[in-house]
Amino acid sequence: MKIIVDAYGGDNAPQEIVKGAVNAVKENDGFKVVLVGKVEEIEALVKENEYCGDRIEIIDARDVITNDDVPTEAIRRKKESSLVCAFRALNTDPEAVALISAGSSGAVLTGGMLLVKRIKGVVRAALAPMLPTVKGGFVILCDCGANADCKPHQLVQFAHFGRAMATAYMGIQNPKIGLLSNGTEDKKGNELSTQAFALLKEEKGLNFLGNMEAREILSGDYDVVVADGFSGNIALKGCEGTALAFMTILKNSIMAGGLRAKIGYLLMKPVFKVVKKTLDYNDHGGAVLVGLQKIVIKSHGSSKAKSISASIMQAVTLHNRGIIDEVTKALTVENPVESTEA
Amino acid sequence: MKIIVDAYGGDNAPQEIVKGAVNAVKENDGFKVVLVGKVEEIEALVKENEYCGDRIEIIDARDVITNDDVPTEAIRRKKESSLVCAFRALNTDPEAVALISAGSSGAVLTGGMLLVKRIKGVVRAALAPMLPTVKGGFVILCDCGANADCKPHQLVQFAHFGRAMATAYMGIQNPKIGLLSNGTEDKKGNELSTQAFALLKEEKGLNFLGNMEAREILSGDYDVVVADGFSGNIALKGCEGTALAFMTILKNSIMAGGLRAKIGYLLMKPVFKVVKKTLDYNDHGGAVLVGLQKIVIKSHGSSKAKSISASIMQAVTLHNRGIIDEVTKALTVENPVESTEA
Repeated sequence: MKIIVDAYGGDNAPQEIVKGAVNAVKENDGFKVVLVGKVEEIEALVKENEYCGDRIEIIDARDVITNDDVPTEAIRRKKESSLVCAFRALNTDPEAVALISAGSSGAVLTGGMLLVKRIKGVVRAALAPMLPTVKGGFVILCDCGANADCKPHQLVQFAHFGRAMATAYMGIQNPKIGLLSNGTEDKKGNELSTQAFALLKEEKGLNFLGNMEAREILSGDYDVVVADGFSGNIALKGCEGTALAFMTILKNSIMAGGLRAKIGYLLMKPVFKVVKKTLDYNDHGGAVLVGLQKIVIKSHGSSKAKSISASIMQAVTLHNRGIIDEVTKALTVENPVESTEA
Repeated sequence: MKIIVDAYGGDNAPQEIVKGAVNAVKENDGFKVVLVGKVEEIEALVKENEYCGDRIEIIDARDVITNDDVPTEAIRRKKESSLVCAFRALNTDPEAVALISAGSSGAVLTGGMLLVKRIKGVVRAALAPMLPTVKGGFVILCDCGANADCKPHQLVQFAHFGRAMATAYMGIQNPKIGLLSNGTEDKKGNELSTQAFALLKEEKGLNFLGNMEAREILSGDYDVVVADGFSGNIALKGCEGTALAFMTILKNSIMAGGLRAKIGYLLMKPVFKVVKKTLDYNDHGGAVLVGLQKIVIKSHGSSKAKSISASIMQAVTLHNRGIIDEVTKALTVENPVESTEA
């Protein structure tokens, strides 16, 4: 089994990406990592991180896609970029099961959509991060940005994607699914969500609990939250922004709070570390682009070695627990859906 | 000037509502409060709160609209409810300038939409809360739930509403306006938001900065955030939920952190109070239903006396600073828009 890693994607590439890959193979067995990018630089970094085994391969790629590139053009034209070369390896190497990149979200999404085959029946793939909940578990938010405009039946597929991920990755047999809306009542929602609600109510194989508010996302009362990519993205970024705002206000108040506050802070430092670790969903891996025949994971742009390592292990686990089969089964056996879009 | 208050709306009605009204008149001059609800109970509560002046009036209303009522039906049929009677007073008493209710959001919105005349040119009113930012100021989120489905030109009106509020209430002459989207680039967005983006770029009288992510709402970099009611509601509730989740995780970590953490917490208690006060937007008043010929404010359902008092003072300030004129001017002088909806 090989995990293909775009070594030149993200704010801390290639140093932290290579370090994360080396740590992953040093600390775990059962897979190889293929690093894609400038071979001489990657070789030097692998050496620097004191790895000399045979579980890291390198594919040379001389170009890089940046956040300034227009995603569709970049994927089509920058054929020698680390990301496009990584997708090529994912498609051609029979041992390759997953691709990981911390690069431009748009490019990773576009690459996944254009270059990787969809599972039969899938209309469009969706991006699904796992967020930590107050109960200590995780909730899968699907879609969080791959599809700004959706049709109601796509949201039904997103529910299946989320269910499959919750089952394959978190081992939950009958995950609780909520539909993100502007209220909890059955009739709440916009045109899209109310139509999706009606379909989800009738769909087989889903433990659909009904409408839920963004307030409940992190509550732990749901295993899967279904949303169109626009709303899901707003929910995700809203959560991120508030956590950040909370930390800033806390820091300012400590600074203004005199000696007492500062001593209190020093004593509470381990507590804050736990809180930060709990809320920092990047430590648990990246967002999975679900619905494709191979696993594609988008790591956060600011990923350090730890996040990359976590994303690699996430890919290994998802593969070992048969995520692709779970999605395929959901769409083809229980709920046959014909693909209606190119 | 009279502020009409629905004394039987909200989780803590009528006790906290009456208390908040009494506090508002005791601590401030220049307005009367009209409490609507069961007259004998309100009279007793006013007395209990030691007020015997002539700045509190009471209108008797025997019925109550609850969260279990279907909003449209309740507004149409429960004609003797405190909320419908309050709307009637708002429309008929020439001194009445504002209505405040902490009752069912749906009923307050529906009541505002059906029973209060719109400002000429307004397609639909929008709900606009003021959220605290990390810079110590406020940001106005418009719409946060009154219109689940919107047309692009409505979002342009919401921008004008927000601008008018920022100018009238916060004294900002050229407020910075952002459009809530799933990315900051000009082309990001769903069908609705990209069309609204194009219109906002061309609109006169608006300091439109472009697309922004939900991550930036509380950053203080924007005075006004424009959104359709569905997305805006998700952003608002997402922020609320994360703040709540943060506090829960913090509390759990303190409990698990032993004596050191607990002493640290005790020392930091004043800091946490400041943080809570900063983030608790209910302390600063309610969400304003903008676009109507009178001021309608929806206070949070869990409002205590303090929030009600704050909402009353918010209404007084908005009236004194000419919010209705600000909106009217924006829509009729600079940007004539014809009403296209009943």
